[in-house]
Amino acid sequence: MEHIGMQTIKFENPPTILETASIVGPKEAQGPMAKYFDQCIEDEFWGEKSWEKAESKFVKETVSTLINKSGISVQDIDYCFAGDLLNQCISSSFGLRELNIPFFGVFGACSTFVESMCLGSIFVGSGAAKNVMCATSSHFCSAEKQFRFPLELGNQRPPTSQWTVTGSGAAILSASGEGPYITHITPGKIVDMGIKDANNMGAAMAPAALDTLITHFKDTGRKPSYYDAIITGDLGHIGKEILTELAETKGYNIKSNYNDCGVLMFDKESQDTHSGGSGCGCIGTIFSGYFFKQLKDNKLNRILLIATGALMNSTSTQQGESIPGIAHAISIEI
Amino acid sequence: MEHIGMQTIKFENPPTILETASIVGPKEAQGPMAKYFDQCIEDEFWGEKSWEKAESKFVKETVSTLINKSGISVQDIDYCFAGDLLNQCISSSFGLRELNIPFFGVFGACSTFVESMCLGSIFVGSGAAKNVMCATSSHFCSAEKQFRFPLELGNQRPPTSQWTVTGSGAAILSASGEGPYITHITPGKIVDMGIKDANNMGAAMAPAALDTLITHFKDTGRKPSYYDAIITGDLGHIGKEILTELAETKGYNIKSNYNDCGVLMFDKESQDTHSGGSGCGCIGTIFSGYFFKQLKDNKLNRILLIATGALMNSTSTQQGESIPGIAHAISIEI
Repeated sequence: MEHIGMQTIKFENPPTILETASIVGPKEAQGPMAKYFDQCIEDEFWGEKSWEKAESKFVKETVSTLINKSGISVQDIDYCFAGDLLNQCISSSFGLRELNIPFFGVFGACSTFVESMCLGSIFVGSGAAKNVMCATSSHFCSAEKQFRFPLELGNQRPPTSQWTVTGSGAAILSASGEGPYITHITPGKIVDMGIKDANNMGAAMAPAALDTLITHFKDTGRKPSYYDAIITGDLGHIGKEILTELAETKGYNIKSNYNDCGVLMFDKESQDTHSGGSGCGCIGTIFSGYFFKQLKDNKLNRILLIATGALMNSTSTQQGESIPGIAHAISIEI
Repeated sequence: MEHIGMQTIKFENPPTILETASIVGPKEAQGPMAKYFDQCIEDEFWGEKSWEKAESKFVKETVSTLINKSGISVQDIDYCFAGDLLNQCISSSFGLRELNIPFFGVFGACSTFVESMCLGSIFVGSGAAKNVMCATSSHFCSAEKQFRFPLELGNQRPPTSQWTVTGSGAAILSASGEGPYITHITPGKIVDMGIKDANNMGAAMAPAALDTLITHFKDTGRKPSYYDAIITGDLGHIGKEILTELAETKGYNIKSNYNDCGVLMFDKESQDTHSGGSGCGCIGTIFSGYFFKQLKDNKLNRILLIATGALMNSTSTQQGESIPGIAHAISIEI
């Protein structure tokens, strides 16, 4: 593997994305992506006594589905990389504690899925591992409770707010396989432009997405048109617009092939999610559910997947801090 | 690099630990390790308006000290791996946001420092990076506030409780240098033996430490006597005793060369910390302050560094969950 440009790593032996799995909740089941997920659960508790336990169950069942679909045995998965939005990443720890695979906890807020794939691809690409698993989750109810207000209050949500996706996505990366391959990774820097509105995450994260996007193009010498699709997750409607405009001011036109998982997850007209979806589970499930299948079916041949995260908590917002953003990118090719 | 045994990776080109740095708070300054740290701060707020902001400052200043001591420029550090105990790892994000280095957020509770070094060593050992930085922190006041009770209540602490270290430790790993070298890593599995007492973390984490310890010996074919020192962080007095006994029942005698950073940090008689120190900053500062110097001075030639974490939060405890533990090990040799 080779370090190219400022931040990018190019694989000589690109890891294959062997298989993916995704399970989502009831609101996602009513959205335009529903048919691509492995399972849609109608009960937000999924039979558990708390939203936190339910989120752990999403992780556990998604990973179990993934292993079954992949056809490889759990003993052949060398390491697992996972994280989520809950304090101390408990939905990952509790969801994966019975799995008996060496575990790396990861925290990149909503960038966690691609951060895990960056780390996993280095393990596989370097020969340190044959197969690794990457997983993430989020849950609307556990996230609202933790980051905002008790759901029972029925607080109004401003138009800039996004709707945390209930769901879990997971993937197995492998040293052998027929692709799609992770050919490059461009891990991102922390970018803080001073946005303090915790109800406008798209605006807080768009500058980080821009930084990683442009760095990726400079490092690889590629242009936006190289990719069939450039996909962020999850800037939502507002962040998508900001990123498109910012990129244009820097000389990169991404209008024709760019979309965002927060935009794709819900129907803007009928589902009342304001600026769209968010949460680690948004890009996690949409990549695992939709884009992976598009790549396998050769409907897309080259995508740039950029996950964005807001590295804050409710205390930092209450203490008047701005919201640092981060974005990690991986290039996936047939 | 080579995957050996069940969980261990052996480096053909072992990364050098180029430099370390550590800054601690007032209680640590009164302990037996004080003289080994780069700086001891007398004010727990360090001039900031909140403990969270103070903890971020510990990270920022430690990393700044580290870069100055290392003699390499910040532009030559390819990636940074960091995490901490605060919700959504904010002390790392805010402490490192001005650094302008691609950032991987890591969460392993008190195992974070060694988890970061495991990940960083794979990047360096594989050629994906020339230099990486690993950092962590904890703060007594921000941790008590978040995980237990408001400090102002002056709650009694049970004899099994540990005292979260205020401090930050950081290290630079490099592809070139004269050692000490990270020769092997043994990332750990999540181990949950059903302990539910959040005031007895040593007991919750000792089984995970045992699992990683024994796996490391089996994978490498080494015995406890191979190492000049086997160091855990942070099981404290009670967890240290449990691990020593558990290891003996499995046929591994570690009595003569085993110690724990939670035991080393404070004076048991005079400092009233009950079962000893804990927190990401405990093993982070003691390795960076004390053990790194012992290795550089050839007073120790081979150590096995095992960091343990409790993968819970206050909600999971309130919901009656047990405490999953994890332990990551690295072998460091001259």
